[in-house]
Amino acid sequence: MANLDQLMDNEVFQAFASYTTIILSKMMLMSTVTAFHRLTKKVFVNPEDCASFAKGENAKKYLRTDDSVERVRRAHLNDLENLVPFVGIGLLYTLSGPDLSTALLHFRLFVGARLFHTVAYLTPLPQPSRALGFFLGYGVTFSMAYRVLRAGLRL
Amino acid sequence: MANLDQLMDNEVFQAFASYTTIILSKMMLMSTVTAFHRLTKKVFVNPEDCASFAKGENAKKYLRTDDSVERVRRAHLNDLENLVPFVGIGLLYTLSGPDLSTALLHFRLFVGARLFHTVAYLTPLPQPSRALGFFLGYGVTFSMAYRVLRAGLRL
Amino acid sequence: MANLDQLMDNEVFQAFASYTTIILSKMMLMSTVTAFHRLTKKVFVNPEDCASFAKGENAKKYLRTDDSVERVRRAHLNDLENLVPFVGIGLLYTLSGPDLSTALLHFRLFVGARLFHTVAYLTPLPQPSRALGFFLGYGVTFSMAYRVLRAGLRL
Repeated sequence: MANLDQLMDNEVFQAFASYTTIILSKMMLMSTVTAFHRLTKKVFVNPEDCASFAKGENAKKYLRTDDSVERVRRAHLNDLENLVPFVGIGLLYTLSGPDLSTALLHFRLFVGARLFHTVAYLTPLPQPSRALGFFLGYGVTFSMAYRVLRAGLRL
Repeated sequence: MANLDQLMDNEVFQAFASYTTIILSKMMLMSTVTAFHRLTKKVFVNPEDCASFAKGENAKKYLRTDDSVERVRRAHLNDLENLVPFVGIGLLYTLSGPDLSTALLHFRLFVGARLFHTVAYLTPLPQPSRALGFFLGYGVTFSMAYRVLRAGLRL
Repeated sequence: MANLDQLMDNEVFQAFASYTTIILSKMMLMSTVTAFHRLTKKVFVNPEDCASFAKGENAKKYLRTDDSVERVRRAHLNDLENLVPFVGIGLLYTLSGPDLSTALLHFRLFVGARLFHTVAYLTPLPQPSRALGFFLGYGVTFSMAYRVLRAGLRL
């Protein structure tokens, strides 16, 4: 298993592993935030979810949408749309052999931007807070994509 | 190409590759289930999708939402929200050099939990069936995340 | 860092890196297309997004849905649903040591199919244009999944 350990011995790879794990775990917590809002506000989308405290016609009043639930769901989807490119392109970027300091700058900016985006979305902070968080993360991913393509384009 | 073959010679990596391929293929099948419900129930969202059997004003009656279609779509989105962290964190976990038996336990529990989640969502089974499937997969991913961060945190 | 450079020296891996980066970047552009439609048509979902040009009750008229915005959002979600399996299974496929020509055929067909899918969705082109783009990409991913599982199934 020597070659796998070698990969984890690489400092850039270790940094990528740490930041990716943190930001993906953050994204997963959005499910819990959604569930929390659904349970405290009794806002459900599936009839079986409110069957324990309401039956039949009575259950229908809990099958509705709520602004705070929809807000968390939009933040979650936005995470998904932006973390998938980060993880995919970031892995290829890491394997293209960047400097540790440059790579750390990319990873830190991205993770910081996305954490700020979530805070700005859920508070909500006045615009352009959320837009700034979004475009900073967006720019970082494109910067990594540029580096991957420049390192060796093969079509 | 020796080094790539080495990676695939690693037993943990081989197990990760098998389980990931299976569960991602399962997720892709959700698109077909959605398409099946849309076609059999004639429930569409794009005007061009029902143009072959209805024109103009007549087509509008097919542009609607349907509970069974929306249910499949929610199950699909939930898969996406949970498989993205599994694939990303799982790959890093695999490269952190876990024991084969521990790794197999994680992969088997996750894939089993997600298959059960899909069955519980689409049947639908009474709660807390679906919640159990969800939280089991959720816990497995966090357990792998913990192991990745403990193996070498570099921020 | 020799072993990382070795991976990038592999021609199949280089091709995977190029096509994955291109198609993930394409997906990210969907966010910009959505933002463009939202701003030009003044169609928003968050009250804070239209606070700069409308206050209070006056702002509510901008909180609505619009067909062209929803269309881009559906194309974006469909991308996400199909690129996640492509990136995950494609990476494992690349590491399973396929011929360069076979791998290039898979990557080119997938990326071409998804680009066509986006054009067909946003124009929109009459069906079955979009369906063809979808099923071609779908088939390519399953073909790679089959190869990964045949290369060494370990459950």
